[in-house]
Formats: sequence, C-alpha cells, structure tokens
Amino acid sequence: MAQLRLHPDRALPAGQDVRPVARRIYQATRELSLLCMHGHVDAAVFADDQRFSDPAQLLVVPDHYVTRMLVSQGVPLEQLGVPRMDGGQVEADPREIWRRFCAHWHLFRGTPSRYWLEHEIAEVLKIDIAPGPDTADELYDLIDARLAEPGFRPRALLDAFNIELISTTDSATSTLEDHARLAVAGLGARVVPTFRPDALTHVGHAGWIRQVRRLRELSGVDTGDYNGFIAALRSRRETFALAGARATDHGHLTAAAEPLPVAQARRVYAEACQGSVSDTAAAAFASHMLFEMARMSCDDGLVMQIHPGVLRDHDPAVHAAFGSDRGFDIPVAAEFTRALQPMLNAFGRDPHFRLVLFTVDESVYSRELAPIAGVYPSVRLGAPWWFLDSPDGMRRFRELVTETAGFYNTSGFVDDTRAFLSIPARHDLARRIDASYLARLVVEHRLSEDEAVETAVDLAYRLPQEVYAPATSTPTTRT
Amino acid sequence: MAQLRLHPDRALPAGQDVRPVARRIYQATRELSLLCMHGHVDAAVFADDQRFSDPAQLLVVPDHYVTRMLVSQGVPLEQLGVPRMDGGQVEADPREIWRRFCAHWHLFRGTPSRYWLEHEIAEVLKIDIAPGPDTADELYDLIDARLAEPGFRPRALLDAFNIELISTTDSATSTLEDHARLAVAGLGARVVPTFRPDALTHVGHAGWIRQVRRLRELSGVDTGDYNGFIAALRSRRETFALAGARATDHGHLTAAAEPLPVAQARRVYAEACQGSVSDTAAAAFASHMLFEMARMSCDDGLVMQIHPGVLRDHDPAVHAAFGSDRGFDIPVAAEFTRALQPMLNAFGRDPHFRLVLFTVDESVYSRELAPIAGVYPSVRLGAPWWFLDSPDGMRRFRELVTETAGFYNTSGFVDDTRAFLSIPARHDLARRIDASYLARLVVEHRLSEDEAVETAVDLAYRLPQEVYAPATSTPTTRT
Amino acid sequence: MAQLRLHPDRALPAGQDVRPVARRIYQATRELSLLCMHGHVDAAVFADDQRFSDPAQLLVVPDHYVTRMLVSQGVPLEQLGVPRMDGGQVEADPREIWRRFCAHWHLFRGTPSRYWLEHEIAEVLKIDIAPGPDTADELYDLIDARLAEPGFRPRALLDAFNIELISTTDSATSTLEDHARLAVAGLGARVVPTFRPDALTHVGHAGWIRQVRRLRELSGVDTGDYNGFIAALRSRRETFALAGARATDHGHLTAAAEPLPVAQARRVYAEACQGSVSDTAAAAFASHMLFEMARMSCDDGLVMQIHPGVLRDHDPAVHAAFGSDRGFDIPVAAEFTRALQPMLNAFGRDPHFRLVLFTVDESVYSRELAPIAGVYPSVRLGAPWWFLDSPDGMRRFRELVTETAGFYNTSGFVDDTRAFLSIPARHDLARRIDASYLARLVVEHRLSEDEAVETAVDLAYRLPQEVYAPATSTPTTRT
Repeated sequence: MAQLRLHPDRALPAGQDVRPVARRIYQATRELSLLCMHGHVDAAVFADDQRFSDPAQLLVVPDHYVTRMLVSQGVPLEQLGVPRMDGGQVEADPREIWRRFCAHWHLFRGTPSRYWLEHEIAEVLKIDIAPGPDTADELYDLIDARLAEPGFRPRALLDAFNIELISTTDSATSTLEDHARLAVAGLGARVVPTFRPDALTHVGHAGWIRQVRRLRELSGVDTGDYNGFIAALRSRRETFALAGARATDHGHLTAAAEPLPVAQARRVYAEACQGSVSDTAAAAFASHMLFEMARMSCDDGLVMQIHPGVLRDHDPAVHAAFGSDRGFDIPVAAEFTRALQPMLNAFGRDPHFRLVLFTVDESVYSRELAPIAGVYPSVRLGAPWWFLDSPDGMRRFRELVTETAGFYNTSGFVDDTRAFLSIPARHDLARRIDASYLARLVVEHRLSEDEAVETAVDLAYRLPQEVYAPATSTPTTRT
Repeated sequence: MAQLRLHPDRALPAGQDVRPVARRIYQATRELSLLCMHGHVDAAVFADDQRFSDPAQLLVVPDHYVTRMLVSQGVPLEQLGVPRMDGGQVEADPREIWRRFCAHWHLFRGTPSRYWLEHEIAEVLKIDIAPGPDTADELYDLIDARLAEPGFRPRALLDAFNIELISTTDSATSTLEDHARLAVAGLGARVVPTFRPDALTHVGHAGWIRQVRRLRELSGVDTGDYNGFIAALRSRRETFALAGARATDHGHLTAAAEPLPVAQARRVYAEACQGSVSDTAAAAFASHMLFEMARMSCDDGLVMQIHPGVLRDHDPAVHAAFGSDRGFDIPVAAEFTRALQPMLNAFGRDPHFRLVLFTVDESVYSRELAPIAGVYPSVRLGAPWWFLDSPDGMRRFRELVTETAGFYNTSGFVDDTRAFLSIPARHDLARRIDASYLARLVVEHRLSEDEAVETAVDLAYRLPQEVYAPATSTPTTRT
Repeated sequence: MAQLRLHPDRALPAGQDVRPVARRIYQATRELSLLCMHGHVDAAVFADDQRFSDPAQLLVVPDHYVTRMLVSQGVPLEQLGVPRMDGGQVEADPREIWRRFCAHWHLFRGTPSRYWLEHEIAEVLKIDIAPGPDTADELYDLIDARLAEPGFRPRALLDAFNIELISTTDSATSTLEDHARLAVAGLGARVVPTFRPDALTHVGHAGWIRQVRRLRELSGVDTGDYNGFIAALRSRRETFALAGARATDHGHLTAAAEPLPVAQARRVYAEACQGSVSDTAAAAFASHMLFEMARMSCDDGLVMQIHPGVLRDHDPAVHAAFGSDRGFDIPVAAEFTRALQPMLNAFGRDPHFRLVLFTVDESVYSRELAPIAGVYPSVRLGAPWWFLDSPDGMRRFRELVTETAGFYNTSGFVDDTRAFLSIPARHDLARRIDASYLARLVVEHRLSEDEAVETAVDLAYRLPQEVYAPATSTPTTRT
C-alpha cells in the first residue's frame, strides 16, 4: 500500500545551487493568506455550509480534469456517476465510482490533477494513503469519516485554508440570493460574486430570449430594445458591485472586441428578440458586447476578465447527453493583437480601466500578450489558465512573459477552480513555481535575493489585491 | 584525428541530483526489445538480405536529413550522388561523396543527425573514428570492410538490434511481394506492412488514374464508380491486414477529415476519373477520404496514423530534377481542433477505433493535441516526428503534453526512419530522454522512482505494443 | 542604497557541472571584437562626435523598451520627455525624467532592459550605484559627470567597445552625408550604411510621393514610370554599396514576397503616383517589391534582411501624438513557408543571394525557419530579435533552431539597437547564452568542449563576418 507523504521541497527545482534559494523565497510566501480572485466554487456551498456528501461527489464526479482522463482511457461518464441530461441511469454508488477512479490512478502521473489530489488527501484531509487499486476502500472510508467532522465543512475550511477573499462566478441573471445569505452571516465581504454575462451577450444561444426576460425582471428595466438591454446590463453590474463584486468575466470563442455602429447593434438585437439572428450577426454582436463591457468597466470600475480561445463542447453527442463542462472543451489558436485593438484604442489607456487577459494558447505569451501588457496601462496578464495551471505550465508562463512584460504587468495567481479542496494546493504550487523561477534569476545573478523575495510576495498577495481592488475613484458616466 | 567514444551518460541531463536517477530509470529500459511500429525501411532490404553497397549509399545519399544540411551550405545534390530524374550525370564515386560529407561534419554539431551517425559508427559498426576532413578515407575503408561481414547484413542486424517487430510503409497498390517472400523466410510476423493510400486519396495528383487502374487489378474490384473505389480500398486493407499490417498511414497537408455527401463524393470521383477535377474538389475529397479511412479502421481494426502539416517539395525545380524526399519539405501551421472534429464526433469514442496523431508544429502540443488525446478514448499522441525527433524535441514533447494528456495517452516511441542503421540509436535516445524527464519529476517529488521506472518501461515497450496491437474483436461491418 | 556589482558569472547557467564549462567557453569569446551588422544608431552620432547631452536623453527618452514599461504602469509619455508631434509641452527637465525612471526601477526586474542598463552603468560608465528611488539624484550627477569626459564621446567609445564595424540603418533616400563625413574622418569602413527602402516600397503610406520625388533627385533617374522607379532603386543601392553598405533591410507586416506580372506592377505604380492606390494593391506591391529586392541582391551582393510580423503603431492616438517607435508595436502571427516560397524558388539556391530572416514569433522557429534555413543555401537565421533579444529568448532560439538548422545556418549575433551604450552588453550577453547552450551539449556528451569553443567563436565573430561579407564575385546583371 502506497504511503502518501508530501515532500517539503516538492515542485522546487533540482540543483544544489538553485533549490535552497527557491526554498527561502517560497518560505517568505507560504503563510500569506489566499486571495481567490476568480473561480467557480458555488456560493451556495458557503451559504448552506453543509458537509460534503462523499469522496466521489467531492473529488471525482464534478471535476472534469479527473473524469476526462478516465474517459480518455475508455471509462464512460455514466460509470463515473456524471448525471445524464435525460435523467437516464448512471452509476449511483459513490464507492463504486471511487474504486474506478483509484483503479486508474496511474493515468494521472505527471499531471497537475495528481498534484492537487495528493495535496488534498495529505494536507487538507490529513490522510497518508495514496489512491490506488488496493487502497480504494480504505481511503474512501477515511475520507468519508473526515468529511463528517465539523472542521471540514466549507466555512471552517475557509478559515483553515487562510482564504481572505473568494470570488464566485455568477450569471448576470443570478439573484445573488446566496450572496445575500452570506452577507447576513457576516461573510459578504469574504465571498463575493463575479458578473458573467455570456448567456446574454451571445444572442444566438439557446435560451437567450429566456435570459433576456429574466434580465428584465431582475433589473426592472425594459429590455424591449437595444438601449434598454444595455441599461439593464448596467443596472445588473451595479447590483453586483453593491454585492461586493470586483470583476466581470467573459468566455468568448475569440478575443474580438469591435464595436458595431449603434444602428446595426439595434438591428441585430431586434432580430435576436425575434429569434432570427444569423451566426455571423451573433458573432459580431458578441464582439460588440465585449467592447461595450469594456466601456462599462471604465465607468463602474469592475475589472474585466477575458477567457477566450476554447471551442466548448467539441463532441455534440456528449453535450447532448451530459451537458457542458465534461472535458470536451478543446482550445483553438488565439489572436489578441488585432482582436483587442479597437477596445485597447478606445479604453486601453483609460486610468479607470483594468483588463486581465487569459489564454490556453502558449504561442501568444511572448508574441502578443507580453507586448500588449508591456505597454497598455490597463492590461494585466492573468495566471496560466486551465490546462496550463500546472507546474511546467506556470514555469513557461514566467519564462515567456517576464522578459517583455516584467512581473508587475501580471495579475498574480488566480486559481480559477471549481474544486474547493484544491485551492490551497494551487496557490501553494504557484508560490513554489514563482519562487523557482525567481531563484534561477538569483543564481544567474540577474536579481538579488532580496528583490526576489519582495517580488514573490507581490505576486502571491500584493498584485492580486491591487489589480482586483474595488474601484476607488468616483465613476464618471460616459456615453 | 578525432577519437569517437560514446559516453554512457550521453543525452542524460546535467545535475548531480537528476542524472543518477535518470541513469537508473534508463537502465531499466535499455535492454528491452524494439518495436518499430512505423518507418520507411524497404521490405526488399530484408527480403533480399544483400550486403549494403557502400558507406555513402548507406549513410549519406538516401538520408535527406544529411543531404539537406550539405545543400544548405552550398553543396549541390548532384555532388552527393542523388540521382537525377532525367538520368543526368551525378557523382558516381561513393568515396568522393563520403569525402564531401566528412568535410562538412561540423555542420551537424548539435543536430540529431550527428547523434545517429556517431551511434551508427561507434555502436553498430564498432569503429572508433569520428568523421572529419582528415578521417574520410580511413573511415570509408573501415565501414566498407565492416559491411562485407555477414553479421552486418540486414537480417543479422534485425537480431543484433533486438528488433521484435518492424513495420514498413507500403503503397495501397503494392503487391506486398517482398512481404510474401519474408513470410516464406519465416519473417512474416516480424516485418509487417503498413497501408498507405495517399496516392489514391489525392485525386488531383499526377498518376492518380494509373493508381486507380492498379487498384482495380490488385483488388479485382471494379473501380468504375465511387462505390467500387471504396470497396476496392476495403479489399486492399483486408489484404494488408492478412499480411500482418497493424496500421494505416496518411500524409495530408492538413488534418481535415470532413465527410462529403455521398452524391458529391461520387461526382468528384467521376470527375477525377475524367481527369478534370478542381483543386478545391480534390482537397475536399482528400478530407472526405480521411473520414472514410477512419470508418474503415473502426471496422477492420487497423490503427490509423495521420502525419499532417508539411508542404512537400517546396522548391519545384528541385522536385523536377530529383523527385521527392530531398529535404525541401517545409512544415506549415497545423490545426487539429476543428479539422478532426467531424471524424472524432463520428468515431472518436468508438472502442474499435485507434488514432495516432503526429505533428511538426510544436505550438499544437499543449493547445490542441494534449487536450484532444486527454479526452477522446481513441486518440494517442505519436512520438515527436521528423525534425522534432531529437533530444530537445523529445524533451519538449513530454513537457508540453504530459501535464494535460498524461503518459498513457501517448503511443510510446515510433522511430519513423528510412535509415535502418539509425534505429537502435533512435530508440535508445528516446529512452534516455524519457528517463530524463521522468527523473526530473522524481527529483521534484512529483513521482516516485518506482512509478518512474514502470512508466519508462511502459513508454518504451508496453504502450506501442498495446496501441498497435492486432485488432482483437471481430470487426462489425458498418455502413 | 543598492550597490551595483556585476557578477562575472551573470547569465551563466546554474549547476556545478555546467557552469564551469560555460565559463570556459565564454572566456574564449569575450575579448573578440564586435561586429554590429545591423542596428539603429544614427551615423550623425559618430560624424558629430559630440558629448551625450544628459542621462535621461541618453538612457531613457529614446529607448522605447524603457519608456513603454513606464507607460504600462501609468506614466504618460509626456512625463518622460518624449516630444509631441504638435510641439506641445512635455517634461523638459532631464533630472525629473531620470527620477521618474528611477522610481520605477523595480518594474524592470527580470527584463533585458535591466540587464543592459546595469551593464551600461557599471561596465561602461564605471559607476557602482544601482538606480532606485533613493539614488536618482546621485546617479544622475555621476553619469552626467562621466559623459563630460572625453573618453565617453561616441568615437572614443567605438574603441572602448572594441567595435570593428557598425552598420547604421538609412532610408533609401538618405544623402548619406554623415557617412561621407565619416569617410573623411577615416571611419568610412568602420561605420557603414544599410539600405532601407520601406518608405518607397509601401506605396500607400503618407509621404510616398514625396519619397519618390526625393528618389528621383538623388538618383538622377526619371521615376515617372515603374521601370524608372526600379532603375532608380538600383542606382541608390549602388551608391549605398559604394559607401560601404553590406546589406539592405526590410520591415514588412508579412514576409510575403510574390512577384506581380510586370504590367500589373506598372499599373499599381502609376495609380500610386496619382495617389489613388487601394490597400490591397499596395499590399500586393509591397510583396512584389520584396521579391524585386531579392533579385537586386542577387545582382549587387547586398545581403537581404527581412524583419516581418509587427503591427506598428497599434494605438493610433499615440502615433498621432508622439510618432512611431513608442513601444506600441505589437507582433502578430508569422508565416514564412508559403510567404517566401516564390522568392526562394526564384533565388533561394542562387549562390549570389544571401537572406537573413528575423522574427518575433517563436512558434515559427522550429516549424518553419529552421527547416527553411536547413536546406536553402541562401538563408541564414538572424539572431533573436526585439522582445526576444533577452537571456531566455536567446536560449530558446538555440534550443528550437539548432537541432534542425545547426549552428552554421544562423547569422551569429546581430545587436539591432538604437541604444549605443548597450551594444557591449548585448554582445556580451549573447556570448554568455551561446556558451551556456554549448556547455549543456558538452555536459550531455553531445559535443566536445573543443568543438564548443570553436563554435562559440564562430557564432560571435566568424559567422557574422562571413554572412555579411562584401560581395566578392562580379555581379552578373540579370533581367
């Protein structure tokens, strides 16, 4: 049976000269509290504060990094308990799901999922047994018992994890009722919403008309025409800001952000309301809305985050059977230089605008993103995202970005996960990798160790705090 | 005169902490027999089992990696004995060719060609002299003498190299007579063909009509219309499978695999038979045929290999004078996410389908290939191909692929060479580089050394054996 | 107050095994004289040989790497003394500019700008104080005093820097009068011009007609039609060659080099003379002219340099206010395989043609550039350019290029800077990084140390000397 022991030097670089320096730099950051400025943990988790149901539902079923790896080796999603859209039968026994996961543990060698899971089991759950075919049942029981302890409820873990602030991601048409409950519980400033209007800016998507109706109800603004639509969105953003939101988030296929002439925007909106919008018009409107969202960010101070470049639901049969976020989201080549030009020309030097860019295409790091962030004052580069949120992915990010953009045009670490228990592991790993990169600079005599320590602290804490700070200046209304 | 001595630690990483671990992991794999699942050694070499003619014809003339490097510094192909299409005069003296090669030995510094050649001379031919202007003649004589020894004939080398299985690449219209002779000699299961239908799926190419005629003759199926063409291809695949083939191989400019409506496929085929097909129609038909080949792989269990993204014969004057494979093949940007979507949606989760993807565009490793292989159960990532079959190329492959796809969604090493004597060097290097990558994970405490050793053995032997296993299930006929 | 001390091992790799080897290889190159084959120092600097005015004007204001980093954190260009096009007020006090720069010194951590500036202050100016908020005034005074010394005038620094040859970059319509003055002063062979015809080949640009008029005046050739235009350009190239030019330089948005039918070229030229050329026609003409420039290089032996792939003046408001070269130049994805095909098919194997390619898109290194340079005898790969002229950028260049193209299809180091005082730092760093890469090959037993030393010397000195050698053969006139 494999003993699970996390080495204190894990993920630090080899080398008798570099590792001790990396260790010292890392030590200066490891106790800093966590700022989780963007992620996908459900606010209800903290509002309800119920115990996590079981090991499989906590660590396997909802984590598409984990299920996709099992799918890639022939395990159907049904056998992993992923619910079918049609309510059809799927594996209901969490222990059986857990066994399947453990039987395939070797698949995760070299992946960040393994790194997170080991950390969750060993550091968070305080269990010293590694998953594997022969440990499945014992491990299941130990985790299950742990989850029954009061110290492992969500709010207790907020403290245990030293989380100072955590942002959820919320549809623009969310009532934010969970956040209201959290406010009542005194957690309103610690668990804040993020404004995600994708379902409203993509006029071609199924359900758009229902979304607009909901927008009208919640905002109390007539969305009968384009002007009303824009005013209603502004109103929702205000509501989010009042609820503590620091940022908006935008998932688009491309980073295109080009305004339409107002008359054309009106026409597309009207067509969409009739349910008769073409794909081309819908794409142009999405691009237009990204531009408009930037304009609103200049006004209300919400930080704009863009996550482009992923073709969602690559396999429509899987989407039809199991819905979104099932591991079938595949990146495509990204382009930022031309796509963002209209937005940056209009707002990129506006002192009220803050824009954080993410990518899953590493070829744009040095070619486009670092040069853009290295000159436009509004732009910061987000942390390595999704597949790139990994030890080597983080290292390459620093190597490809720093020489052109420096450290101070990056946002600091953003965990962006729905796996709540993995949050400490992710921040800890980011601190280790940043320390490793900085240590190399020190050993190559390109930076002093004092500077490296200061920079590491900035990356871990001060930069996300500053980049995502609440808007300070009085917003000027623009037209 | 430069002494040639291969260091036992060659290609293993620097570092007092990493290298010993890498050495131990490598040791666990170095004696494993070789599975050469895709390559370009001619079956006739083994069927004839003649001595290799001379050092230049063995190591220089047919190796476009070697000749292109000399061309790049102004040595014309004629002076390297590469035959002209028009039968015009080229250098006929192998010693003169060998001297030219030796005079330019410094050009190969830092390249894999040097690595292969040193290994071939030192390890295979047991000669301890490095090429160079002053060693050309002596080295020529020593190699030539070695090639006269019976132990250096092709079949003897199969044993000496510890090759368990080697795949050749054969036109869909090959008679497979060399494989028949090998079967008679008891080597039928050790030297197997691969089905390569490119000359038939690219309807616009010169000689296509001749190819179709040949297809009809060999298959005995009337290829007068599209249905007959498809049936004839199926028949040829069966013949290949019976001759031991494990796989098909497809060299296309793009990875596009989108089916045409049958009526349209029929029309393009009929136009092609008339010799009047447009470039656009030909490209659409090639894309369609890639889709159809995937369908057939689901039925007959032949593993599908795709090698896309190379613009062949970049210089038409060189092509006209010397034919193909002369070093003038230049990669272009690759795209897989959208190109493969129709094929993967149709067959990607079919348990009978196995698809191995190759690329010469490193920007798709982390962006597209690893996410695709990390979810679709049919997909495995082939080894670093062509220019990337090199020490640093292999290292980058593991670094860019593993964190998203793991180790077990890769195919293990595929040597893919026409240089028979380089095969042991290539497998040996792949094992060294995989060991180096794994050793880093061990030293960074991301993997135990036991797991690393097991994974190294899997990559070197078990994975190619599994991925390219003969189809086990009874093929179901699909329509 | 931060002491500034450059460590002798700076930028050499960590590791007890690699660093000593790297140090020895580097030592073999560090005293070699500098060949500065392409750059942007103004010839007038050497012709006038005046003292540099002040620290801010020398090290901050004209260096867009420095100013863009300050802009990226909210410092307006006005506050950095960058002159406005409209003559509007900007900061006039150099000490104030210097203070702003010093206050933001931490932004440059990890960037090459910091590396250059530290070297300039410590090694060139012999001052041992690092910039910073608390050292600004003292450092300003020390630098200012140093600049008053005769040993710090431009010509004295040419000697101090051990510069054997330096190329300036000059508009095709330059009178080359500064070079004439330099010739009189005996420096004509040491400071040579480079022919840059961009303002003439981009027919759509503002001021093109004025440029053509100037071309006619200087060449004495009637530019009334296309033939005259071409003849005038040939004449200017001759004048440049007589003034010592070794090369031409071309900054285009893409690398497209496709000839137009002569009749069409004539028509576009005529339209442009009327001021009525379309964007499409202008782009086609630029592509055509790149092809024509290659033809002329075959004739007159001037080495052709192409710097493609940068979208200049990304923010038109900044361009209108401050002109070009203000840090708002952002790269776009590059493509060479198809773009250069017409040019390479026509001239790529011409023994009189020499073509040096640059890029700011690292994804083409292994995919396109190394395969092209690895076979076409005319092509050499230029050093890492612009944002990539950095420690890690240089390392990645060697790692991504060498295995396919070798060392001898690269141009050796090209500093390409307008910051005269940074030239020794840049060459020195390139030598350190090349030594580091070579040392790794030695320690991995892929190269002997003797070969590594020889290669390092070739990269630092012999290769640029050879690649940019004056044309030796009598040019044959082609039509």
